[in-house]
Amino acid sequence: MKVYLDNNRVTPVDPQVLGAMEPLLKEPYGDLHALHWAGAASRKAYNTALEKCYAALHAGEKDTIFFTSGSPESNTTLLMQLYTRQILTGRKNSLIISEREPLSILQAAAWLEEQGVKVHRLPVTEEGIVDPESLTDYLTPRTGLVSICLVDPESGAINPLEEIVRICQSYEVPVHTDATWAVGKVPIDLETLEVDYLSLSGETIHAPTGIGALYARKDTELSPLIFGTRSAPERYRGGPLNLPGIAGLGKALELASDALDFEMEDARELRDALEEGIAALSGTQTLIEWSRRVPNTLLATFEGVESEALLYELNRDGIAAFSTTVHPYGEWVRPSLIERLGLDPALKHSTVGFALSRYNTEEEIDYTLKHLGKALEYLRSFSPVAPKENA
Amino acid sequence: MKVYLDNNRVTPVDPQVLGAMEPLLKEPYGDLHALHWAGAASRKAYNTALEKCYAALHAGEKDTIFFTSGSPESNTTLLMQLYTRQILTGRKNSLIISEREPLSILQAAAWLEEQGVKVHRLPVTEEGIVDPESLTDYLTPRTGLVSICLVDPESGAINPLEEIVRICQSYEVPVHTDATWAVGKVPIDLETLEVDYLSLSGETIHAPTGIGALYARKDTELSPLIFGTRSAPERYRGGPLNLPGIAGLGKALELASDALDFEMEDARELRDALEEGIAALSGTQTLIEWSRRVPNTLLATFEGVESEALLYELNRDGIAAFSTTVHPYGEWVRPSLIERLGLDPALKHSTVGFALSRYNTEEEIDYTLKHLGKALEYLRSFSPVAPKENA
Repeated sequence: MKVYLDNNRVTPVDPQVLGAMEPLLKEPYGDLHALHWAGAASRKAYNTALEKCYAALHAGEKDTIFFTSGSPESNTTLLMQLYTRQILTGRKNSLIISEREPLSILQAAAWLEEQGVKVHRLPVTEEGIVDPESLTDYLTPRTGLVSICLVDPESGAINPLEEIVRICQSYEVPVHTDATWAVGKVPIDLETLEVDYLSLSGETIHAPTGIGALYARKDTELSPLIFGTRSAPERYRGGPLNLPGIAGLGKALELASDALDFEMEDARELRDALEEGIAALSGTQTLIEWSRRVPNTLLATFEGVESEALLYELNRDGIAAFSTTVHPYGEWVRPSLIERLGLDPALKHSTVGFALSRYNTEEEIDYTLKHLGKALEYLRSFSPVAPKENA
Repeated sequence: MKVYLDNNRVTPVDPQVLGAMEPLLKEPYGDLHALHWAGAASRKAYNTALEKCYAALHAGEKDTIFFTSGSPESNTTLLMQLYTRQILTGRKNSLIISEREPLSILQAAAWLEEQGVKVHRLPVTEEGIVDPESLTDYLTPRTGLVSICLVDPESGAINPLEEIVRICQSYEVPVHTDATWAVGKVPIDLETLEVDYLSLSGETIHAPTGIGALYARKDTELSPLIFGTRSAPERYRGGPLNLPGIAGLGKALELASDALDFEMEDARELRDALEEGIAALSGTQTLIEWSRRVPNTLLATFEGVESEALLYELNRDGIAAFSTTVHPYGEWVRPSLIERLGLDPALKHSTVGFALSRYNTEEEIDYTLKHLGKALEYLRSFSPVAPKENA
């Protein structure tokens, strides 16, 4: 049996998403500006997808949504424009992010710091989230942007964005959020969540990799990152648009919206069953309170077991999970969540995560629990630091 | 009948390319660094595609090829790194391009100029190509880069890149070429064509939009444009890789290589038949000598007829062609080829192009010629400037 539980990195493509892409993969589609039937087909596909994006996010009609190759490009676009429009012009001098941002934000912030920008990195609390009050220590009239992810890429912890926005608004500082791990897992309504910018990506919502979007509230300025821009809708991003990807993203956002209740109830039930099963094993601990976490994710520590060894053992039984330590992030190291949560630092290398999707089944969860138990028993049988008692 | 003759902008996806993408669109594929079966599937797909890219381009094993969202991103990456590594550090102060570069190069060059970089734009000759000797007027030890497209995006004229490279080498100035309109139409052998950098894009070689690559010869430095980079192979470009696109691009490059003889002989025959048919109509003129042009493209002027009106008429009969005047390029206007070729400037608005692919048939060409003749007759029947005699 193959059980895929690494859905916070790449989700399988939904057959309906593929269905929306297929006309563009099987018939000629033209340049969006082309004065012929193939151009018309592209414009129709583009408009259909864009409407679905606006609807799914409850974006206002004067707001801007444009397509990118994914949230890293969306994030880089925004932080580079902060640099060219706000920092270089001397209008602003600082950026506030959380220390648990996705890698693209962390790297862009490090680059900005090299250019002399003041970067404040807010630590997360013992609950794994940003404390909105901590913002007030750094917010000034010269803060160019606050960028805090809506959901932690690894733990699934949900940041209190509405409160963060409220505080930033009182300082007239714009807020960006990377919602890549939030879309389809928590309701996103841009009428009530008053962020100025929002990034999202196809690969976490059952669209393929290589497509994403950047949302900007009306009155916000935008400079392209990639040259080759033309008239609208290609004003903010150069190149012929990734139309099959756009059609897929539109459909995926529609499905994410429609499936939200399922994700929040049925998927949560499966995740909770997995979590209860893990909690019943000895020497385990799950991180972040249920109420503060997206319904598809759980992160657990397994005492006396190396994350990579456990991933390897699980994979032998066809189970795909993730660890928080596999990426050599170079100089931009994300601080360990384990330490922030006040846990034994040794557990940093014994943390494994499971990210479900709407495709997982009860049978898969039972199978995972059974094999997880066996894997732990096996790995601990030759571990010098295994817990003494077994459940 | 539908006849698609706008293949220099977007080509239809080859069924074999879709076949290479489908496993990644129908089964879970993981993050490239993931320690499980889905990650392994991705690594395998990635490696297969990368090998095909190296083989198709005859790239050396120490050379770098990395994937982008298309040639605009490849071009922007390179020109921004010229800025950050060579210009800002004071090592270099100028850039040489041709005036007929793709929009992403023209815009990036305009941006660099705003930052104080000297930008020299070489005009094309009456043959529609860059005169290599004209480079020597501008090349200095402080020239950071020469960027000249291998094939003109509109006319299909082939620039004498080998000679350009030879001259630049004598000044030790690196050369970049955007080969988006060349791949699959002329042989590209990086063992003999000693450019330092080369951009290419999926949408002109029967892969979908949204995927492309940047090639860099060994010993060349590269900085990422999009943050979120990880360890190799994601060192030069942030974000989860567009794996379905990469698999498609690899296959498309392989097919482009395999189909090159066909494109150069059979497709050329069809194009030539179309060209002869057009030449036989009154008040027409085809641009750029056959021997200096890719085998799939022809650009012709139609006296007394507006390009857009002709495109519209052709489209009524299902024929998709292109004009050189439909894009409002904002401030970055590409000089008119018509004037450079020494033709009547009025013909600027009477130019229509036809770009074939390996999918076009003799029947389609016959159909196109028949309807083109009718369209011209109809449009000229109420044109104040139509040619007096009809053929």
